[in-house]
Amino acid sequence: MNKIKVAVVGLGNLGKACIGILKGRKEFELFGVFSRRAVDGALPLDTIEQYKEKIDVVLVCVGSSTDAPVLLPRLAKTFNTVDSFDTHAKLADYIKNIKKATDKSSTTAIVATGWDPGLLSLGRIYFDAFMASTTQTFWGPGVSLGHTNAIKGIDGVENAIQFTVPKQTAVSAAKKGIQLEGFEKHKRVCYVVAPSAKHESIETAIRTMPNYFAGYETEVHFVSQKEFRRYANRTEHAGQLINTDGKSTAHFKLNLKSNSHFTASVMIAYAIANFQLQKEKQSGVFTVADIAPKYLIQGDCINKV
Amino acid sequence: MNKIKVAVVGLGNLGKACIGILKGRKEFELFGVFSRRAVDGALPLDTIEQYKEKIDVVLVCVGSSTDAPVLLPRLAKTFNTVDSFDTHAKLADYIKNIKKATDKSSTTAIVATGWDPGLLSLGRIYFDAFMASTTQTFWGPGVSLGHTNAIKGIDGVENAIQFTVPKQTAVSAAKKGIQLEGFEKHKRVCYVVAPSAKHESIETAIRTMPNYFAGYETEVHFVSQKEFRRYANRTEHAGQLINTDGKSTAHFKLNLKSNSHFTASVMIAYAIANFQLQKEKQSGVFTVADIAPKYLIQGDCINKV
Repeated sequence: MNKIKVAVVGLGNLGKACIGILKGRKEFELFGVFSRRAVDGALPLDTIEQYKEKIDVVLVCVGSSTDAPVLLPRLAKTFNTVDSFDTHAKLADYIKNIKKATDKSSTTAIVATGWDPGLLSLGRIYFDAFMASTTQTFWGPGVSLGHTNAIKGIDGVENAIQFTVPKQTAVSAAKKGIQLEGFEKHKRVCYVVAPSAKHESIETAIRTMPNYFAGYETEVHFVSQKEFRRYANRTEHAGQLINTDGKSTAHFKLNLKSNSHFTASVMIAYAIANFQLQKEKQSGVFTVADIAPKYLIQGDCINKV
Repeated sequence: MNKIKVAVVGLGNLGKACIGILKGRKEFELFGVFSRRAVDGALPLDTIEQYKEKIDVVLVCVGSSTDAPVLLPRLAKTFNTVDSFDTHAKLADYIKNIKKATDKSSTTAIVATGWDPGLLSLGRIYFDAFMASTTQTFWGPGVSLGHTNAIKGIDGVENAIQFTVPKQTAVSAAKKGIQLEGFEKHKRVCYVVAPSAKHESIETAIRTMPNYFAGYETEVHFVSQKEFRRYANRTEHAGQLINTDGKSTAHFKLNLKSNSHFTASVMIAYAIANFQLQKEKQSGVFTVADIAPKYLIQGDCINKV
């Protein structure tokens, strides 16, 4: 079997996790790593187009807020890509912009892989299709980047991190078939570094921030920079799906030691899917919902059915 | 949106469950029920071919051991079908025989839907693709039809039922990443009606039966016909998937109040998929592994991604 030649773009936690996993996987050959910054061992991103013939799939490991929406439409003109774009609210627009490139170049872009969107999306679709109720999602305990960034934007905040924590009472209620709102399901636990004089105004700004914190049970802890590092190094995350009509129950729990490691492993699984879609000349933009499970496995998967 | 016109073949527990669910689902129209036996309200199966133009999808609710392998290759010549064939070991041959019909008639057959094969198959494929370890499946507590029939075949047995029960120690071991064999994971609990004089020979025949019971922790309980009815009326079943490398863990639990009701609801979900595949002129034989999740949902499913 020919090896799948992949390139990694981006050298943050996610890119590094991809590289680490790829080195242990004999079905892949890591062609190279590309970065916008000058990094030892990385090729400059501006040169990637010249390696077109040597790369089957590009794993794009950049941030969802500003980088991916610019980079993906560009890369998809030349390459088949897999990314982990994770801003649910902007996904439809994101797809539309990339589709212009894939339609023109007959490339294959698989977007929004990872654990959510990703594995949890798949669970929601299947549970909603097969079960009598609506699937409820719980996240955490784990860091929410969006909420963390929202706190960092408050005047006087030197550093911050926000953990989303599912409420056990809410999980129990969901298992009984009670449908809950987001603010009923999760607690928001914030660790903030800031000068004492600013504590009161920062705490008020957090607690009253619409969409992010207002209405949620919120803990605000002011900590020293040294103490902060302990929280900042935590890499675990978790998610749960619960669907029950009070009679039959589907309950899925995903506990990740490393958020980025798992996201990387899902991206790599969809690199296999991308390669197989290419062979069938299936181009365009695909989410996990658009891809039959068989494409994740090389060879026959009837023994898993 | 046009209603999907379905017919149900077979009036056992599964067929009845399909009819019950379809009556509450406005996206479907139940054209009719077909049976090989003369049943009030059912049309004779021999006449089904004349209704070809009036049926979009046939839900085939017959036994996997002898009926489905004969009936599906026949029905697939004329109809688009969904079934819940569940003999893993014979699935490849089953598909091959139906494929002759779908290739000739450009029909769409979705086979082996339900909970296992079905939802648990999907879990195994996704977990194996995304996680670092191999997914372990636990079944039960619930009735195993194959084991029940194996006991019923023993000389002197008047009635029997076999419950497959996962061992809690094995579930705990699997959660620690220990890979186990089938006989280590499950206990087999048998309730048997038989004359006293035969108890000893029956118990020996059960315990030593290769593949089915030999090597397994097995309980054999001889009960009266009256007591037996209590067990025979139990409809619940359950399944679990566990995949962990000792660091990250995916754990899926499915608890069903009624095995046949859930199987019916999965078949109906795949009737939607079948209808959408037909519209795209995708014919052939499909397992759950071959079908993208989006086909289970009518309309856009991006809000679930």
